[in-house]
Formats: sequence, structure tokens, C-alpha cells
Amino acid sequence: MKYIGVDLGGTNIVVGLIDMEGNIIKSYTRPTIPTRKTEEIFDDIIDMCQILIEEFNLNLSSLKGIGMGIPGEVDSKKGIINYSNNIPIKDFNVSSYMKNLCKKVNMDIPFFFANDADCAALGELVAGAGKGCSDLVILTLGTGVGGGIIIDNKIYSGFFAGGAELGHQTIVHNGELCTCGNKGCLEAYASASALIRDAKKSAKENPNSLLNTLADNNLENITAKVVFDAKDQNDSVAITLVENYIEYLAVGVANLINIFKPEVLLLSGGISKQGEKLTTPLKEKVVTKVFGNDLKTKIDIATLGNDAGLIGAAMLAR
Amino acid sequence: MKYIGVDLGGTNIVVGLIDMEGNIIKSYTRPTIPTRKTEEIFDDIIDMCQILIEEFNLNLSSLKGIGMGIPGEVDSKKGIINYSNNIPIKDFNVSSYMKNLCKKVNMDIPFFFANDADCAALGELVAGAGKGCSDLVILTLGTGVGGGIIIDNKIYSGFFAGGAELGHQTIVHNGELCTCGNKGCLEAYASASALIRDAKKSAKENPNSLLNTLADNNLENITAKVVFDAKDQNDSVAITLVENYIEYLAVGVANLINIFKPEVLLLSGGISKQGEKLTTPLKEKVVTKVFGNDLKTKIDIATLGNDAGLIGAAMLAR
Repeated sequence: MKYIGVDLGGTNIVVGLIDMEGNIIKSYTRPTIPTRKTEEIFDDIIDMCQILIEEFNLNLSSLKGIGMGIPGEVDSKKGIINYSNNIPIKDFNVSSYMKNLCKKVNMDIPFFFANDADCAALGELVAGAGKGCSDLVILTLGTGVGGGIIIDNKIYSGFFAGGAELGHQTIVHNGELCTCGNKGCLEAYASASALIRDAKKSAKENPNSLLNTLADNNLENITAKVVFDAKDQNDSVAITLVENYIEYLAVGVANLINIFKPEVLLLSGGISKQGEKLTTPLKEKVVTKVFGNDLKTKIDIATLGNDAGLIGAAMLAR
Repeated sequence: MKYIGVDLGGTNIVVGLIDMEGNIIKSYTRPTIPTRKTEEIFDDIIDMCQILIEEFNLNLSSLKGIGMGIPGEVDSKKGIINYSNNIPIKDFNVSSYMKNLCKKVNMDIPFFFANDADCAALGELVAGAGKGCSDLVILTLGTGVGGGIIIDNKIYSGFFAGGAELGHQTIVHNGELCTCGNKGCLEAYASASALIRDAKKSAKENPNSLLNTLADNNLENITAKVVFDAKDQNDSVAITLVENYIEYLAVGVANLINIFKPEVLLLSGGISKQGEKLTTPLKEKVVTKVFGNDLKTKIDIATLGNDAGLIGAAMLAR
């Protein structure tokens, strides 16, 4: 049995044929061109699905269904995209529109929808660092801090749509302003953007820091990687920045463990590429913060990278 | 069909016969005497269950099962109490011990176990302020801050036992010391103990505050009720204390709503007796803090009081 996954991103649409173990058999990519009409974007998706169906001679005995990950708030029960963050989609009945594919290929294909971060969580559970687990929490440390929750092998996103906003837990009352308008959110401390914000400030205050050298003396060149690289070269300013970053991340991770006691908590996104350089000091801090200092949850790095969303989307149709 | 609920508390054991709607038909109370051997405590429980079974002529066609709420960490799958907070129970196989009741009444009764706070959450869902809902989060504002989570009509307490420690989410990094050893937990700001701690300090610093008058000029007489009473009589010190208290509570509530987007979030425990005087200003603050300022979750006061745990325990056997 096979599944088609659709990963609708702000930049690209990826449509792939996935097997039961979550392996990508074949995938196609087209630019999203988010300025287009919503219907045009979905016509492209329908076209890409049709190509895969015909190329692999798929029928209802070999194709279990199509799953789609959407960057925004999805009412998966109704098959409606409430809104999207990066693509101007609003109150779009995607479930009904995808029926056009059914007509074209003359098959009554089941469709499933979820938020893309939730799909990434499911992907890691089925085929990534959470393989063999049933309960998982994932934090994506990128421009923002996203989250996904899997309970008993299923995506959990709240009773009302749009839960699992794990980056928007206040960890510092009246702290740094967050993109959401609230103050002191985990995102305002544990996103790459937050690290870059603090690093620019420190680099300015410490002209001799390696941060400036590695950034060619241009604050705009400072990335999260620059900070971690300077730390690896023993720059004291960068060491402090990374220590603070991990301290705040540990607070958010400990909060989630106290609430969910998940089997595994995964980190994904750009900063997670630091691997054990991130997880080793993180675990040391988390164990001092969790209730009863009893850390049973495995803390690890997600392994599927950009494929997690596509694979997890397909797995919605399991 | 009927259920027997057992609410094992640090002070009293309550065993009750409960109907399908969560009404208490009859209940018996005995002192726990927590200094006794664990077996003696459970012999009392077995005896109380037997009395109810015989009094109401219960058999397997009228008694669906027995549910028990335990103040501590329970491995409900294995039927083992890992440890209890108020009663010196450790690694006790309650499931196996309760079989002694089966022998006495010659019935193979199904048993169910859960943490008492989780039972209280289930009780409110079935027969209290969450009636008709499927997804609920409850915060108990007492000496500490406890929590319970119901997802899709079932208790959620984590993959590993002992989750839903909702009072031990850090909301103020490096803030007030919490009883758990961590700093800045919600419990260190939103428990009655936290309010009393702050009120004692303010009363000392402000000899003319009504707080001192209402406490007969003895700081030890200051309770959460004294603070709210002084606020109701327009004492400016008490007004500030209550405003701060509600501000921090709102942070914790907003965090939980961002994560769970529950159908309803209930407040129980001593401070919840303030009713709308608490929920009205709380809601005003929460809406400014939740993601997208989109507050769909109903915030309300739990209604079952001390009966919630007993009723919810019985409902484990549904």
C-alpha cells in the first residue's frame, strides 16, 4: 500500500509517493508562487498528484489516500484551511476542491489535511528520530519556534483548531517582545531570530569578539551558525550567548516535559543541526528543571529535515 | 448501571456509590490514618466497598466497576501506586491487593486507578462545570497548583506516568523559588500559598493596610480570603496583590490554552471560590495573551468541590 503526500510551502509545493515505512519513492517539486489565486495553486497540486497516479498506475487497491500539510490553521475535520501564514489562503474548502482530482482520475480517493508542523511531527514518528515511539513532542527552532504533538500515534492539535503553539508559552513574564505581540514567549528566546538579536547586541558591545570577525565585521552577516562557530572557537562572548540560549530552551523543554511526559522530545529546524553540541548541555539543564528531577523523556534531534513534512503528510492517510 | 468511587485522601477515605450521571447515591467516610501500614488502609477501603455492595445488592449486572483516585503517581496500566505525596505508600500493587475484595464478595470486579487530580478533572467533565464537553483542562488553586487534562473524554497524564504537572511550568525565568526546587513555576505565583507569601510581605510594609486589620494584626492570620476581602473593601495594597496574582495566573492559563486549545478551562480549589470576581478580570487578561488574541476556550469555575475526585474516580469505570 502507498500514500501520496503533499507539502504545500510558502516557496515550493512538493508532492511525493511514499511507502508504508515512510520512504519517498518519487517526488515532484514546483514553485508555489503564492501570489496566485488559491485555485491555481491547488490545480498545480492536483496535476502533480495525477502525474504520480498515472506514472505508478495507482488504483484504490494500491493507493490508500492523499495527505496534505498546510502552513496555517486547518480544520481537518471539515477539510477547510482557515488561514495560511505564508500563502494568502483564507476559509478555503480544500476537501471539496480536491474532488476535481477524483473526477480526473476516476477514483474516490480519501483526503486528509493537517498543519505542516503537525505533519513534520508525524513524519518523525513514523520514519525519523521517533520511529517506534507512540508519543512525541517536537520543537522546531527556526525563524520562529514551532511545535507538534503526537499522542498515541495521532496528531494532537487541540479541541479548537490551531493548538500546539508550543513556541508561544510565556517563560519570562514581561520579557522580550515576541512576534505574536505577547512578551516573554519561548519563541522570543529560543528561535534563531532571538539568538541573532542577542548576538548582534553582544557583537556591537564587544568589538573584539570573534562574532565580528566571522561576520566580516557586518552585523547583518550574523547567523545562528556564526554564533555556534564562534563558541566552538572559544569566543567568550559567543560562549555566554549559547549558554543563555540553551538555558531558555531548557526552560521551555522542561515545561513541555512536565505537561506531556512524552516518550521522546525532538528538536528540528536550523539550530538543531548543532546536534549533540546542543542536546548534551540541554539535557544537563533540563534534568535540573523537570519536576522531581526525573527525566525519562529522551531528548534527541529530528532526522528527516525538510522531508519530515512530506512524509508525515502522506502518513495522515495511514 | 452503577459505579463505586474511592477517593483516598491524606485525611479521609471516601467510598461512594455513583450513578451514570455522576450523582452520589450513598457514600461512607473513614479517617485515612496515614501512619498505618498501606495494607491496613486498603483493608478499610475493601471493607467500605463490601458494605456498599451488600447494602445495594450489587452484582456484575448492576456494578460496572470500581475506580480509585490516589494522591500521587499511579501507573494505571500496571495498577501500581509508584508513590504518594501525603500517605507513605510506595510501589504498591493496588490492583493485585484489591482482588481480596473480589474473593470476599465472590465477584470479578474490574478496577481502575488514576491520580486524584486527574479524577477531579474527569468528575467535572461528567457531572460538573465541564458537563457536555469532551476536552478540558483544570487548574486547582490551593496550597499548590495542581492540574488535570481531559482529551476526548479520557484522562491524559502523559506517556510516562505523572504528567500534567501544570503548576510546574516556568512562567518567570529565575523567579520565586517553588516547592519543587525549580524557580519561577506557576505554582510559585498562582497558589494560595504564593498569594499569602506576597500578602504577608505587603502587610508588613504597609501597616495601615486593611490586610492587618482583617488579620487581627497577626501576619499568621492572613489567608487568600483575607486578601480578596480587603480588595473588595477597596484596600489599595490588596487591590495590587490581587491584580498581580491574576496577572500571573493569566500567563499560566494563556500558556495552557496556546498548547491545548481546550473546550473549557476550569479553576478549582480554595481561590476559585471567588467566582466571577476571579474569572472576569482573568479573562480580560488572558485574551490579551493568547496567540492571535483568539480566545475560544470557555474559562469557568469548577462546581463539584470536594466531590469531584470521588465522582471522577467512579467514572474511571465507565
